Amino acid sequence: MAARLFPRDIIRIKRDGGRLDRDAIETWIRGVVDGSFADYQSAAMLMAIFQRGMTDEETALLTEAMMRSGEVIEIPEVRLPKVDKHSTGGVGDKVSLVLAPLAAAAGLAVPMISGRGLGHTGGTLDKLESIPGFRVALSGEEYRRQLATVGISLAGQTASFVPADRKLYALRDVTATVECIPLICASIMSKKLAEGIDALVLDVKFGRGAFMKRIEDARMLARAMVSIGKAMRRPTVALLTSMDRPLGRAVGHSLEVIESVECLKGRGPADLMEVTMELTARMVVLGGLERDVPSARARLQRALESGAALDKFREVVAAQDGDPGVVDDYGRLPTARRTVEIVSPESGYIHDVDAMAIAQVVTLLGGSRSRVEDGVDHAVGVSDLAQAGEPIAAGALLCRLQVNDESRLQAALDLAQGAFSIGAGRPELSPLVSEEIA
Amino acid sequence: MAARLFPRDIIRIKRDGGRLDRDAIETWIRGVVDGSFADYQSAAMLMAIFQRGMTDEETALLTEAMMRSGEVIEIPEVRLPKVDKHSTGGVGDKVSLVLAPLAAAAGLAVPMISGRGLGHTGGTLDKLESIPGFRVALSGEEYRRQLATVGISLAGQTASFVPADRKLYALRDVTATVECIPLICASIMSKKLAEGIDALVLDVKFGRGAFMKRIEDARMLARAMVSIGKAMRRPTVALLTSMDRPLGRAVGHSLEVIESVECLKGRGPADLMEVTMELTARMVVLGGLERDVPSARARLQRALESGAALDKFREVVAAQDGDPGVVDDYGRLPTARRTVEIVSPESGYIHDVDAMAIAQVVTLLGGSRSRVEDGVDHAVGVSDLAQAGEPIAAGALLCRLQVNDESRLQAALDLAQGAFSIGAGRPELSPLVSEEIA
Repeated sequence: MAARLFPRDIIRIKRDGGRLDRDAIETWIRGVVDGSFADYQSAAMLMAIFQRGMTDEETALLTEAMMRSGEVIEIPEVRLPKVDKHSTGGVGDKVSLVLAPLAAAAGLAVPMISGRGLGHTGGTLDKLESIPGFRVALSGEEYRRQLATVGISLAGQTASFVPADRKLYALRDVTATVECIPLICASIMSKKLAEGIDALVLDVKFGRGAFMKRIEDARMLARAMVSIGKAMRRPTVALLTSMDRPLGRAVGHSLEVIESVECLKGRGPADLMEVTMELTARMVVLGGLERDVPSARARLQRALESGAALDKFREVVAAQDGDPGVVDDYGRLPTARRTVEIVSPESGYIHDVDAMAIAQVVTLLGGSRSRVEDGVDHAVGVSDLAQAGEPIAAGALLCRLQVNDESRLQAALDLAQGAFSIGAGRPELSPLVSEEIA
Repeated sequence: MAARLFPRDIIRIKRDGGRLDRDAIETWIRGVVDGSFADYQSAAMLMAIFQRGMTDEETALLTEAMMRSGEVIEIPEVRLPKVDKHSTGGVGDKVSLVLAPLAAAAGLAVPMISGRGLGHTGGTLDKLESIPGFRVALSGEEYRRQLATVGISLAGQTASFVPADRKLYALRDVTATVECIPLICASIMSKKLAEGIDALVLDVKFGRGAFMKRIEDARMLARAMVSIGKAMRRPTVALLTSMDRPLGRAVGHSLEVIESVECLKGRGPADLMEVTMELTARMVVLGGLERDVPSARARLQRALESGAALDKFREVVAAQDGDPGVVDDYGRLPTARRTVEIVSPESGYIHDVDAMAIAQVVTLLGGSRSRVEDGVDHAVGVSDLAQAGEPIAAGALLCRLQVNDESRLQAALDLAQGAFSIGAGRPELSPLVSEEIA
């Protein structure tokens, strides 16, 4: 038995650039949860990690300790391969809403515990909650049972779920220690590994509208997470995908639910469908249902065309007390009072749409939150977005703002207008999915 | 008016190695006192400063902001030059108890606000409190009046005195951010500059028993503090003094009071007198009473030999409700129940005495505190220390332990025995005062 480590001693190791061993990391994370490591001590520790970094081994130890800080869900009664997807977040990223029923219809079980949106990216829970009645607060028992019966659980985090992450994440937010790869990595992976998965697909986004602006950083993060998945014997694959422009034609909670249902009906925008299919296909392969990505894609195509994926969406909505009628009647979703159209001042091609500007428009309209305790307006947002590469005529529609609170409408209009770059000639667009890391 | 800076934004600047301007530093320090900067945010900030450093300008701004976080004492009614001394702390360092009355007897006013001892070094307040009745909690009014009438105030910090330092110091202690030159510098200088001084002498110690182990670090700290004194128009001189061995022959509260009185009676040990005279002489020169150090030393010699310095000691003790009779009857001071002698196992010369080991002996005997809220035993300690360079016969006295609580006596004895290095031949000793930085 080693001598007991005091918080100060553990901080000092990292402060001086040393490596934390299992004992030090477990003492810290236990202390985060039981209070023996005070918030100010964790804050100093986080800043020391920010400055000094962590080795892959330290990051894996941190992930494991965080994962074990609460209940680690095990679902042996579900015999299907249990595979989830995680995205680092982007503007208009409603992939989960399409991917989960699609993967389940293809024969996987999808145990998905999501967070709420914070800052410029929307959260899966908030989108789901725009469906009348939809309940994300599942008990552990409900979560397990629904995974066995429906094949999908779309749940929020309970108090006992990775409590160390909840505490550290809140601290990182207020101490300027968010942008740190080992900490991001441990935060994401500890939650995914505690969900009860057999394998994991990661969508690591880079670009203007993503958390990671540079592909190099996204690649580093992806590699770190894939390596942790491997260390924890959960096969993990990451795709690096571009997030310079909004994904799809809609940003906002109800609007994204509608667009997701359109995807499941086979009418989704090409960019959104491409990212969704690429990610879901990797899940199918990791889950062992198909040997390679092309066969997996074919299998998913059948699940879409047969209507099985759409049925699965109805089924999970109903299972979680939501109104499955929204699938056939979008009017049952919250709708904004007023629609304002933005039209193109000139003819040409859409060369670019600034994802960050569109996200800010949604924020100005009340569709996102800047603090976890804030509410969101599910009805508002931007719809009918013209997409990069498309021709546009002067006076033709660039997008529609769906508005309830008009107090910041002028600023939103100005921002939305400025989000579009229009030029002569069809632009060359970079690929959406640019790398696979396995 | 600049946009309001949020804690997170200020932390981010230093996190990324940027320079904090006056606005950022003042916002932080105001926030430390009014709570708008949470402890965990200050902890992250302290670690960022530890990692990224501060320029001289930033350190000066921090010092000034901390100084102004509470009442800055001004004493225009005292016409004498107001000069104080600060030591970074050492084992057996009772210089202040001799220097203050000596400087006052020589014609200076000495406004001295001290702290309590923490860890291995004793604090001036604790030593003074071993004098029966001595009261260190002076009100601002008492502090000013006594400086005018007696010429010395030996006070503890009140709640309104540099509150930012009290808060940050406590945080640094538990977040492993103590050993950081800009932070040490701002902590020391903000308190000294708030005392009401015209000039300042610094005793920056280096070596085994000092806070700074290496002379290079002591020199950097001394330079930073001298530069701040200059920036704040308070002439400041620093001496770098060696702290490998205990200063004088006694370590422990009562024991050090006795040794200080012996110094004032002209019977002090040479090493202690040398450091005291060198520091006090610089005070006399900075205060403008003499033109150079040799004349200042001669003036101090006269103050000692005439008994004026001893009288001043009696006067200040009486003014602060202490028993001035201790000067003539050491039995009035707390005395330990039992004395244990340690003798030399061999003949030769004392080559070395480990200051840190002696400090730990005093701790084992109950004579120091590890937490600010702990009490101390004023009676215990180590006396009659043989000093490096002295010849010693086998069986002759190395030191006496003054003991009350015997529960850790054996460990104390072992440590004390091991603290002395005895060898053949008179050792070459390095100088006590090794550099002056002005």
